[in-house]
Amino acid sequence: MELVKTFKAIQKKQKAYQLVLNIASWDSNTEAPKKAFPYRAEMLSIISGESFSLATSEAYQEAVYGLYNQREELDVQTRKEVEKAKRSLDKIVKIPKDDYIAYSKLITMSQRVWEDAKENDDYEAFKPYLKEIIEAQKKMIAYRGYQEDHYNVLLDDFEEGMTKEAYDQFFDVIKTELVPFVKEVLAKKPQEKPAFITDLYDEGNQKQFVEYLMEVFKYDLDRGLLKKSVHPFTWNTHSQDVRFTVRYLKDFVFSSIFAAIHELGHALYEMQIDEALDTTNLNSGTSMGMHESQSRFYENMIGRSKAFWEVHYENFKQRFPEQLKTVTVDQFYQGINWVEESLIRVEADELTYPLHILIRYEIERMIFEENLDVDSLPKIWNQKIKQYLMIEPQNDSEGVLQDVHWSAGMFGYFPTYALGSAYAAQIYYAMINDIDFEQIIKANQMDKINDWLKEKIHQFGSLKKPRELLKEITNEDFNPEYYIRYLKEKYQNIY
Amino acid sequence: MELVKTFKAIQKKQKAYQLVLNIASWDSNTEAPKKAFPYRAEMLSIISGESFSLATSEAYQEAVYGLYNQREELDVQTRKEVEKAKRSLDKIVKIPKDDYIAYSKLITMSQRVWEDAKENDDYEAFKPYLKEIIEAQKKMIAYRGYQEDHYNVLLDDFEEGMTKEAYDQFFDVIKTELVPFVKEVLAKKPQEKPAFITDLYDEGNQKQFVEYLMEVFKYDLDRGLLKKSVHPFTWNTHSQDVRFTVRYLKDFVFSSIFAAIHELGHALYEMQIDEALDTTNLNSGTSMGMHESQSRFYENMIGRSKAFWEVHYENFKQRFPEQLKTVTVDQFYQGINWVEESLIRVEADELTYPLHILIRYEIERMIFEENLDVDSLPKIWNQKIKQYLMIEPQNDSEGVLQDVHWSAGMFGYFPTYALGSAYAAQIYYAMINDIDFEQIIKANQMDKINDWLKEKIHQFGSLKKPRELLKEITNEDFNPEYYIRYLKEKYQNIY
Repeated sequence: MELVKTFKAIQKKQKAYQLVLNIASWDSNTEAPKKAFPYRAEMLSIISGESFSLATSEAYQEAVYGLYNQREELDVQTRKEVEKAKRSLDKIVKIPKDDYIAYSKLITMSQRVWEDAKENDDYEAFKPYLKEIIEAQKKMIAYRGYQEDHYNVLLDDFEEGMTKEAYDQFFDVIKTELVPFVKEVLAKKPQEKPAFITDLYDEGNQKQFVEYLMEVFKYDLDRGLLKKSVHPFTWNTHSQDVRFTVRYLKDFVFSSIFAAIHELGHALYEMQIDEALDTTNLNSGTSMGMHESQSRFYENMIGRSKAFWEVHYENFKQRFPEQLKTVTVDQFYQGINWVEESLIRVEADELTYPLHILIRYEIERMIFEENLDVDSLPKIWNQKIKQYLMIEPQNDSEGVLQDVHWSAGMFGYFPTYALGSAYAAQIYYAMINDIDFEQIIKANQMDKINDWLKEKIHQFGSLKKPRELLKEITNEDFNPEYYIRYLKEKYQNIY
Repeated sequence: MELVKTFKAIQKKQKAYQLVLNIASWDSNTEAPKKAFPYRAEMLSIISGESFSLATSEAYQEAVYGLYNQREELDVQTRKEVEKAKRSLDKIVKIPKDDYIAYSKLITMSQRVWEDAKENDDYEAFKPYLKEIIEAQKKMIAYRGYQEDHYNVLLDDFEEGMTKEAYDQFFDVIKTELVPFVKEVLAKKPQEKPAFITDLYDEGNQKQFVEYLMEVFKYDLDRGLLKKSVHPFTWNTHSQDVRFTVRYLKDFVFSSIFAAIHELGHALYEMQIDEALDTTNLNSGTSMGMHESQSRFYENMIGRSKAFWEVHYENFKQRFPEQLKTVTVDQFYQGINWVEESLIRVEADELTYPLHILIRYEIERMIFEENLDVDSLPKIWNQKIKQYLMIEPQNDSEGVLQDVHWSAGMFGYFPTYALGSAYAAQIYYAMINDIDFEQIIKANQMDKINDWLKEKIHQFGSLKKPRELLKEITNEDFNPEYYIRYLKEKYQNIY
């Protein structure tokens, strides 16, 4: 079939463009010298342009839409490739090229402006860009053919099939069940934060422990590497090259450790995808939410469990004998699960984290549904933080300016973080029904967990949708009650 | 002028392809995990293919040859760009695409075969590939329109304007003047090699000293970085991003130090090219020979000078107090300039180095002028090593198999190494006539030397030809006597 041949050939060429652009971006984010950037930006925009032209070429559109119309006749994998390709095409083909270019420039600029604004606590400087981005987003969604329910389009972009109705249901559970529970925990937890949490830990030793963790989690060094960067991230181009980064904070050792386990979760997902998918558009995790469920699963269900530290605490303690001289494993376990009122999402504990997301979800809805204007944003932000987290930002840098997402036009992204945690909990209860989770962790046999997740989720890449996987694994649709149950069981035990 | 516009636009796009391919190659050579390579090779060949299609497109050929025919009317820079572009085009347009692809594949394979052959001392395994490469080279040169004097074409490819007549003259001087002098030095040098040369030096401290050297040489860390790799190299894509690598051998500390200064020489050349040339094909050193002259100048004229270590030896010694406890700066100076009969080119000292090149030059001439067959190569190699260097390889790994060049089809490349050293000496005498070289080094004012070289050589990139630069700087054509004079003055003083 000629169309299939054309489609696969162009898809492969797109993968090649993606590969070189991704390698360049890895380089930019981990080591490129600062004066390299202006030239690099100009040259990479030429390559992105070539890739964009290819992705929107007539030949490709004909192939994708042509095949989509006869998708029932295709083999399953090709059909999935075509469906995913069509979804991506739909997002761009109706947008006039000039608008697309203008938007790319706006985003590039606004991220730089946001960085400065955050550093200088200067929301006013960022405000006009934010306003422009929101307007551009609405305009582009309209181009795509959606005259209303703009926020729904964005939610679906980041998590296929999710709507504000579905998210409302989810966040209602969080509001009614979790919010009061958090208050309860905060009221009864010890007053004084143990000193070892914020003690100083040597960077070199932190790094060595992270390398130890890579072994524990059976991360394959023939197919990846660990590096330092300003913000931790996982990077992958195909199943045989999946890398991740962490940063080491001297006065917050748990940051590097749990960021490492978190990124290891993302990385293992990508590494365990069937290699046969590598030259297709299906060779990555199936959705933002499912990806986050894996990173959260490794970080929280495994990494912040008591069983895990019963095995590995001694190793950790030996590296930091001074800091942990008098700290028992029980105290340590309470320390890594310390709950507190906090302002910064990325540093929030497991229990209060979803409230940070709830706040962003409510604000994004107001922006797109109620036309909340950018002037009122900081005030609304601070009100909601106070309402749900009982604390108030002293400035916008630790308030509305803290996250990069909006400056990059990513509205509708945040909710997938909370969704991922909830998926993880639902998967967790299925797993402990199936294998002796605690015993496996105590026996340090992480490959058994990796294998389970590979078999049920990872191997499929984007061949199956998140809800489909969830249903297969748990015999249920998505059910946020597991998340609440998991958090309550855990934190009732700790405090 | 329409043609100029087309030419510049395609040139810029080519630079963009080069940038991403270079970044990928940097990644491959410094950190990519080993299982990443098969997929990467396949995908990068797609991008190289795109770049090749562009570089040989009709539009580009029309622009280049069209402009070349009216080059007298162009501004100087554009004319030079067109001339260089034509030179590159000439090399490929007449070669049938199938031959070109077959040759690329052959080269990729043969490098892998060579690596194994070298490791296993198995010349027989490599021999058929070498034979095929030589035949392919001859065939491709014939395609380009040269029915005879094939070696001349290769020499000119690597150093424009150089012929075997010119190289014969150069190597005659080396044979008649240097070969006997080397024998003399070897006869009278001390018998016993000082122990500190091969003592063990901690890798971490070696690295820190290399970082110190980067400061000394005023290498700009905002425009580059240092990394580790199997073989040291300099990497650059434009004047604002020029990196280099070294390796650290525990039992050969001088290897990392002088490789670092050598690469710093290459790097400073690239960094000091006029930024305005960055989007053109002129933004790199003007020839292999001139590039090597700069690396050799920094490595030898500066790095292996007594004045240099009078300033920096204390710093070095403090990092390795055990190894250097009883070593004076004079002894150290003799140690870094230790002369000996050696088998391996890349580890040879400054004095015997050109003899290693002489041997390769004579053999390459025999291959292309006298049809020396690949069966006889190892024997000839060993004979010549014995004749000039008074030592005999025990196996082919340390003989004819030692260098990567031939496996990559690079015949005619080696002579530029010796030529570079000779250029460096000629430049050196011009420089010491002009500025107080020794005093500047003793005052640790490397910027003054950088500035001099920038003004006379570096800034021009490929705007001027090597011979043109040499003439401007020294008021003379290339004259190898300076090289002999320099080596004699130096080594008569040491031994």
